[in-house]
Amino acid sequence: MTENADVIFVGNKPPISYVLAIITSLSSGNLKEITLKARGQAITAAVDVAEITRNRFVKDLKVSKIAIGTAEMPPREGESKSRMVSTMEITLSKEKTKTE
Amino acid sequence: MTENADVIFVGNKPPISYVLAIITSLSSGNLKEITLKARGQAITAAVDVAEITRNRFVKDLKVSKIAIGTAEMPPREGESKSRMVSTMEITLSKEKTKTE
Repeated sequence: MTENADVIFVGNKPPISYVLAIITSLSSGNLKEITLKARGQAITAAVDVAEITRNRFVKDLKVSKIAIGTAEMPPREGESKSRMVSTMEITLSKEKTKTE
Repeated sequence: MTENADVIFVGNKPPISYVLAIITSLSSGNLKEITLKARGQAITAAVDVAEITRNRFVKDLKVSKIAIGTAEMPPREGESKSRMVSTMEITLSKEKTKTE
């Protein structure tokens, strides 16, 4: 159960899994805003997820904020230096229904 | 020669090539704003390029705008359906020098 889940971490699953997670979260209550977080190669997937959700499923969803940044990752096994990896956050907001 | 180049398309070259293109553009005149454009897997590269440039080379560069979207690509050879691909634009702006 992911009640009030307002943050979804996008990784290596097929985009549609995250799309479904967004739709589920949005339809389960008062949630109006969801943030997708991704790093490294998953950044492209996060953009795909946001675009698929907006274009095909939740037409009144808007991209309200996008931020990029850098995170330090611990070194891989056998390596001594930590790695820097790009990060991205996409916040999707549901517009208020006009006549309610 | 890329005079007044304010748009850089990020593709499959190593990130440092694009970083150098940004630095060159910025240092060659009055240019204060550069937009990186990328689609598909190159989106991650565009974020890397923006982050590397900001963190290591041009410290007074700010991310002033990020936009995502979808573009239709012509079908691949042997396929009949066109494909949708995610796009991203990152606009980098140079802050005005305080004492000038």
